[in-house]
Amino acid sequence: MAFVSGVTPYIIAVFSVVIVCFWIQSLREKKAKESKGATDSSSKVRRWVDQDLQDDTEILPQHDEFDLPHVPYAPPRYPVDVMLERSQDFYTLMDQRRSVRFISPEPVPREVIDNVIRTAGTSPSGAHTEPWTFVVVSDPHTKHKIRTIVEDEEEVNYRQRMGEKWVKDLARIRTTWVKEYLDVAPYLVLVFKQTYGIASGGKRKTHYYNEISVSVACGILLAALQNVGLVTVTSTPLNCGPRLRALLQRPANEKLLMLLPVGYPSASATVPDLKRKPLGDIAVAI
Amino acid sequence: MAFVSGVTPYIIAVFSVVIVCFWIQSLREKKAKESKGATDSSSKVRRWVDQDLQDDTEILPQHDEFDLPHVPYAPPRYPVDVMLERSQDFYTLMDQRRSVRFISPEPVPREVIDNVIRTAGTSPSGAHTEPWTFVVVSDPHTKHKIRTIVEDEEEVNYRQRMGEKWVKDLARIRTTWVKEYLDVAPYLVLVFKQTYGIASGGKRKTHYYNEISVSVACGILLAALQNVGLVTVTSTPLNCGPRLRALLQRPANEKLLMLLPVGYPSASATVPDLKRKPLGDIAVAI
Repeated sequence: MAFVSGVTPYIIAVFSVVIVCFWIQSLREKKAKESKGATDSSSKVRRWVDQDLQDDTEILPQHDEFDLPHVPYAPPRYPVDVMLERSQDFYTLMDQRRSVRFISPEPVPREVIDNVIRTAGTSPSGAHTEPWTFVVVSDPHTKHKIRTIVEDEEEVNYRQRMGEKWVKDLARIRTTWVKEYLDVAPYLVLVFKQTYGIASGGKRKTHYYNEISVSVACGILLAALQNVGLVTVTSTPLNCGPRLRALLQRPANEKLLMLLPVGYPSASATVPDLKRKPLGDIAVAI
Repeated sequence: MAFVSGVTPYIIAVFSVVIVCFWIQSLREKKAKESKGATDSSSKVRRWVDQDLQDDTEILPQHDEFDLPHVPYAPPRYPVDVMLERSQDFYTLMDQRRSVRFISPEPVPREVIDNVIRTAGTSPSGAHTEPWTFVVVSDPHTKHKIRTIVEDEEEVNYRQRMGEKWVKDLARIRTTWVKEYLDVAPYLVLVFKQTYGIASGGKRKTHYYNEISVSVACGILLAALQNVGLVTVTSTPLNCGPRLRALLQRPANEKLLMLLPVGYPSASATVPDLKRKPLGDIAVAI
């Protein structure tokens, strides 16, 4: 038979290889199509979602859909010269604010701290969810545990995780992983963002833009502290969130955003001789 | 020759298929190994990175590594009774703040707005990068273009992207995609976060925690506005960033974080009758 000639085995071999290649290719295409389909459908549903909405939040209906009545709003109105003076005075006051790492152990009246937290709580928030919890720690034992957790993690951050560059950037402002102020400051305020809420019935309630909202509240909190002559340093301890959350027994929907030691500055407090950008470098008029 | 027997072609065919299968498998493994390697090394280098640091930021050395000298810091210190009074007064003032969508077209002195922006610029920022740009728009033509862009996108957001649930949530506070205040308010302040900076030599400079920093600055800005009797509503227009950035000719490293119409409240301004959580619901004492 001509079929069993000398070249036939090679033809069959080549033919087999071609078939196998096609088969593998078709399998790959099928797989790629499937995974593309998955991407398509998710991007279709949440195409509009930006970074801050990418919580692990279930989208479920809420139960408080009542339309709130509107009420007249007439806040105090100042004459132009008073406005100008108030704007200048407030700028002068806020411009004196500095991040201070040298905090005095002197006691601070609790009521002042309470008013400062109340003030932070006046911040706006996405869909009025008020997604913040301020944990105010004055117990020395708990403060020390917080310090231990933060220093443990910060040392690892500085030594291994952050890379030479960041360590150099922060060296400019003499930050190290030793945070004595966590023991010394009369209060530590740990600000948690609630990444979702719990509606009646135990279902998850979306907290839109929770991180931005809580950060805005922190800005108002800083203003309130400066207004009473107290100091702090805004810190965002890397990787400490879960351990601190466990220590402070916060629920699973809360994530640590900021840790603020609060007190009077120590008598020998110093700050790096930083300058702020002038208005022309931060504002554009159109 | 026995080699060219009747079964040989089939043996060769099977053998070829086996070889091709092994070859494809080894190519796949190599590919998987490479991509796994990439993940490993990136997770090794930036394992500590949290959401806010996941910018599209190149990590490159900076040139301003000088150690800044420290200077003494002694801010004003108030007696306890004055502190208490100041904390109460500031709380009362800030508690009067509401998000207002009914803004008067009356002119507002430019110098007041400048002082408000200066005040926002006193905010702390990660590694003192001051990663904010405040674009203050008073030109009616540009304001109208902004309104058109925002309403275009917001209508799509409301109708298609946001889903029934969010629309219901916002219905409570009577938000719709018609934003008359964008034409009416004497100023629109568009707050951009600089996701990275440009160091000397044109290299990218990391802006750590830029979104949190700019949000904190917005909190201080809100306090400064309230302090002079002006109103705003914090808005974070979805999907408008790129078009507004192009309109305002902001560079590629800037992304829109917030859009704030600023002015006096209109004489007939109303606000939804919302309550704020009491201290006990937002603070935990330890």
